[in-house]
Amino acid sequence: MKQTITRLFKYQKIIKQFYQKGYTRIFSGTIAEELGLSPSQVRKDFSLLSIPGRKRGGYKITMLGHHIDKIINAKPEQHAIIIGMGKIGQALANYSGFQDEAIKVTAGFDVKSDIHCAIEVHNIEMLEPFIKEHRIKVAILAVPNSLAKKMANRLERAGILGILNFTGVELLMHPATVVRNINLEIKLKNIFYYVEQLTTSSQTK
Amino acid sequence: MKQTITRLFKYQKIIKQFYQKGYTRIFSGTIAEELGLSPSQVRKDFSLLSIPGRKRGGYKITMLGHHIDKIINAKPEQHAIIIGMGKIGQALANYSGFQDEAIKVTAGFDVKSDIHCAIEVHNIEMLEPFIKEHRIKVAILAVPNSLAKKMANRLERAGILGILNFTGVELLMHPATVVRNINLEIKLKNIFYYVEQLTTSSQTK
Repeated sequence: MKQTITRLFKYQKIIKQFYQKGYTRIFSGTIAEELGLSPSQVRKDFSLLSIPGRKRGGYKITMLGHHIDKIINAKPEQHAIIIGMGKIGQALANYSGFQDEAIKVTAGFDVKSDIHCAIEVHNIEMLEPFIKEHRIKVAILAVPNSLAKKMANRLERAGILGILNFTGVELLMHPATVVRNINLEIKLKNIFYYVEQLTTSSQTK
Repeated sequence: MKQTITRLFKYQKIIKQFYQKGYTRIFSGTIAEELGLSPSQVRKDFSLLSIPGRKRGGYKITMLGHHIDKIINAKPEQHAIIIGMGKIGQALANYSGFQDEAIKVTAGFDVKSDIHCAIEVHNIEMLEPFIKEHRIKVAILAVPNSLAKKMANRLERAGILGILNFTGVELLMHPATVVRNINLEIKLKNIFYYVEQLTTSSQTK
């Protein structure tokens, strides 16, 4: 189910693109090709979610968009904050990729508050009142590794329910807290490992 | 197996930390706790990889480190380049997280070459000769979405075997090319979705 949900966000994006290009219908095969999936996977997902479609005529784009929006319960605006305004934090603040997609990064927090970037940066002392006042539920954690666990616990106590973890530290949170990790180092090492395997196996052939 | 390999990189990191603190032995339970895994998972991984250990005495750290290094075939230095030196590209160039870990980002490439950051930035025209001369196998793709597919194909033709994809575009590459995606938007949406589920279900209770 977790993977289906992730694919739904991807479907939504493709559907939006085709809608903006003026299309009214879209085929499972087209969606599949755009995402590197099999058409049967796409049809299976849609049928699991009771989305009606015909093999010949494809899916009506507005109907498909409406169905998916309803399932993922898309809010017109979703707010997150960034904790730790070092290089990664600042890059995320300035990152424009979110803007199209109703995700707003509302503020950043750091021990230094004289950081100038695309969002307001507050002193970390303001964290708890800000979360409470703006009912923030999601935080992006970009502090140094040495502060990661302490800060994650502080976020949890302040009412944060979801954390996008950019630190290299595994966070052990309350089971109900949603944590997703972006561990650049591990991802890169993983790539190096498989590339090395490829290179070695082709040399021994 | 893919997940075991990813865990190996995590084990390696924890082992290094404990070694640096002066420990000589480590228990599966300790490793498990640090990573939020079950001790039996850790023991299962080690036994799958024929790493000897005793339940009572734990694992000898140097032996464990040596075994894992051998399996993941860690090179003293691994080189990657960054394509697209916008905000994300520059943040990655300045990111110090890689430095401890023998991963070196050797150079960045952009249409603009007057970008000043922690690494040398070359004009994108220099891409192919650079890859050839320095035998680069891994690239981090951080170009705008509209250029992603074109640039990924260009990297593949130039001999790149592994891509860390920071763009929001699904790359459809040759099956032998190793692609790992870091899609911030999808990850954040996923968090918002589950947090929303949590909030809604607790309200209806």
